[in-house]
Amino acid sequence: MDFPRPYSLTEIADLIEGKVFVKGTGDVLGMNELHIVRPGDISFVDHPKYFNKALNSDATFVIINKEVEAPAGKGLILHDKPFDAFNRLSLHFRRFKSCNQVISASAEIGEGTIIQPGAFIGNNVTIGKNCLIHANVSIYDNTVIGNNVIIHSNTVIGSDAYYFQKREDGYEKFQSGGRVILDNNVEIGASCSIDRGVSGDTFIGEGTKMDNQCQVGHDTIIGKNCLIGAFAAIAGVTVIEDDVVLWARVAINKDIVVGKGTVLLATSAIDKSVKGGKVLMGAPAIEVRQYWKNYVAMRQLPELLKKIK
Amino acid sequence: MDFPRPYSLTEIADLIEGKVFVKGTGDVLGMNELHIVRPGDISFVDHPKYFNKALNSDATFVIINKEVEAPAGKGLILHDKPFDAFNRLSLHFRRFKSCNQVISASAEIGEGTIIQPGAFIGNNVTIGKNCLIHANVSIYDNTVIGNNVIIHSNTVIGSDAYYFQKREDGYEKFQSGGRVILDNNVEIGASCSIDRGVSGDTFIGEGTKMDNQCQVGHDTIIGKNCLIGAFAAIAGVTVIEDDVVLWARVAINKDIVVGKGTVLLATSAIDKSVKGGKVLMGAPAIEVRQYWKNYVAMRQLPELLKKIK
Amino acid sequence: MDFPRPYSLTEIADLIEGKVFVKGTGDVLGMNELHIVRPGDISFVDHPKYFNKALNSDATFVIINKEVEAPAGKGLILHDKPFDAFNRLSLHFRRFKSCNQVISASAEIGEGTIIQPGAFIGNNVTIGKNCLIHANVSIYDNTVIGNNVIIHSNTVIGSDAYYFQKREDGYEKFQSGGRVILDNNVEIGASCSIDRGVSGDTFIGEGTKMDNQCQVGHDTIIGKNCLIGAFAAIAGVTVIEDDVVLWARVAINKDIVVGKGTVLLATSAIDKSVKGGKVLMGAPAIEVRQYWKNYVAMRQLPELLKKIK
Repeated sequence: MDFPRPYSLTEIADLIEGKVFVKGTGDVLGMNELHIVRPGDISFVDHPKYFNKALNSDATFVIINKEVEAPAGKGLILHDKPFDAFNRLSLHFRRFKSCNQVISASAEIGEGTIIQPGAFIGNNVTIGKNCLIHANVSIYDNTVIGNNVIIHSNTVIGSDAYYFQKREDGYEKFQSGGRVILDNNVEIGASCSIDRGVSGDTFIGEGTKMDNQCQVGHDTIIGKNCLIGAFAAIAGVTVIEDDVVLWARVAINKDIVVGKGTVLLATSAIDKSVKGGKVLMGAPAIEVRQYWKNYVAMRQLPELLKKIK
Repeated sequence: MDFPRPYSLTEIADLIEGKVFVKGTGDVLGMNELHIVRPGDISFVDHPKYFNKALNSDATFVIINKEVEAPAGKGLILHDKPFDAFNRLSLHFRRFKSCNQVISASAEIGEGTIIQPGAFIGNNVTIGKNCLIHANVSIYDNTVIGNNVIIHSNTVIGSDAYYFQKREDGYEKFQSGGRVILDNNVEIGASCSIDRGVSGDTFIGEGTKMDNQCQVGHDTIIGKNCLIGAFAAIAGVTVIEDDVVLWARVAINKDIVVGKGTVLLATSAIDKSVKGGKVLMGAPAIEVRQYWKNYVAMRQLPELLKKIK
Repeated sequence: MDFPRPYSLTEIADLIEGKVFVKGTGDVLGMNELHIVRPGDISFVDHPKYFNKALNSDATFVIINKEVEAPAGKGLILHDKPFDAFNRLSLHFRRFKSCNQVISASAEIGEGTIIQPGAFIGNNVTIGKNCLIHANVSIYDNTVIGNNVIIHSNTVIGSDAYYFQKREDGYEKFQSGGRVILDNNVEIGASCSIDRGVSGDTFIGEGTKMDNQCQVGHDTIIGKNCLIGAFAAIAGVTVIEDDVVLWARVAINKDIVVGKGTVLLATSAIDKSVKGGKVLMGAPAIEVRQYWKNYVAMRQLPELLKKIK
């Protein structure tokens, strides 16, 4: 998430009631989780196991719960609950605002775009030209939609990340301050749900077409000209490169990369990154030829066991 | 379902055009299906196979299609179609009422609760304090929602049980008279659907968090602080105890118990009850270590078959 | 799709800027894709591999990109892009029209039918008597619904076919001009999506009951008195005959036939046609007895491998 203007580290520390103990270089330009930080960002870390990763990441600033030494140029804020502090920043910059209008007055909607009855367009949403938003679609605040985008009925764009931390007395929610961005010529089927990023953006690339009943988790990046079949379960923080084809009911785990041109056949699931250009099947998915070999062998197994006995 | 006041057995018999032939003790306080009856309830039975079960259940009153002897204190109504009679009672006490308002005037909504545009709140719904009901959510009549509950866009709370009896000329619907209850601090993702009970309540316990695209069947009870991943298919009349974690696309059969703290990994399915505290995988799910052992063995099978031949 | 009146072949050629080079017999009565053409229809073909199939189909008229000889009575229009020409026809006869009303003034709604708040009813929709359309349902243009039909909240009827052709620079959409037809006594659960046909109709037969979160693809025909469990993924151009039972989360591939009375157990998938009357399980589904034999054998495999080594 980019801040609306550069902030001094002291200003940020005041917002979260923390203490600057290493000053760092320059201003704070935005905030992000460690896996997507950019120079100028502030991030957070609350476990010694990840201190080194945080301090040596691209983040220029880190909220941390221990006074440690920092690499040259990095700025640190001491806070006893960095997770809570990060949540407070998200809420400060992107707090949920209720909306009394079906189409928020703050939404910008391009020429030639049709919005059908019952579609909700939240605050600060931008929609390009010649889009078609069907009835009863729900678009949360800050969503960005390009030109010639079609969204079918009852689809949800921008719902919160499903992201909780376990506490002794239950789960604490990681506040979502990110957005969803749909590039030009994207088509999203009916009854889908696409979560926004926690601090970054969930992105769907130009020309990608998604069937009905699909789900995309927070901060996931989908490339250009992909085909996403019905009931795709795409977890958060995952990268799906260009020209990937998912047949129906594919499941893709979080935090992995699906290489360019990968084809996942129906009902397949993957929990690890895969290189591009292959046709995969099964759960976990393997090359389709091998899948059918295994399948044929499995069908001979009862006979084999009988013989052996 | 509790009746609005105690009814004499004769009053109930008149409502359904049945005949009291054993008087029983006390008044009829409510109605329920056999699996959830309480003392004071009326239930029904229409097949000799289940007569004993019904007569010896906690139900104080039974609608039955044969003049049989009853245990002491039980009251019986004779009716040639007990299923239809039970449906008539459901319709009498909880008949669907159309609603001309997007938020029914009979709904009670607590302080600090935000209801976004397009969200439908049916008759006699109760929503607690500081809840956030997002755009285009649909909440059926009689739903009860606690405090600090978040429901994401286009989710449906309280749709009818999927419950039909086969007849010669098609299916007859079991009328839903139950409710959905969401306890405090529950969060439900986008595009979910939670059916109400047939005569009882579908219940989701305090602090449980559900991702997008999930389905919960009628009369199912989910405990506290569970995590329910995207696309969970949870059937009716099932009990999920506290602290259960379901990763994405888990399927759970009807009428079973998932023990406290069970973890079901992604794409797993279970059709029998499981004890608590274990990590399970597969369909049907088994302990995860054993699952991977089987998987590794299966991958060696084509080679093995080649050798043997 | 039937045309609103018979058209001469020359009229059709003018609409698509094509050239009649074989005149054919009679008028053009409608348009359809090859797999569902009827006498009097116009269809299209753009690949020499399918020329014979197209010319010998039931279509009386064909849009084609080469001057070929035609069987007696057939009429041909020459066009360098038959796919685009067919799309132009779809758009001419069934172009999407935006709607400013939540219930279109052109919709015909039968006596006793209840439409709950937020339900969108598009242009030229016909709904029979005594139906119940719950809150936030979206019904696209030209849908036809019989009597005593129940549609639960947030379900979508008539979204576009998921049907694209790959081009060098992305995907081109096959325009949907078809409809959805729901026969009498159908019940559709919450959060379902049923796509309309591309040129024909998606049809759900009398008395069929569908649970929540289901998806039905374009031009699929479902018979009478079927039970369709939650999360059914039914692809396009498929036929499901009468009395079929799908338990939860079944996947059915496109362009196949599921025979009368077939039962597919939970989480099963089929990619080929199956004869009726059998109980199947697995992915791909096989007879349930065999499925469990294979399953039991598979569980013995790690032990077997140990012995052999």
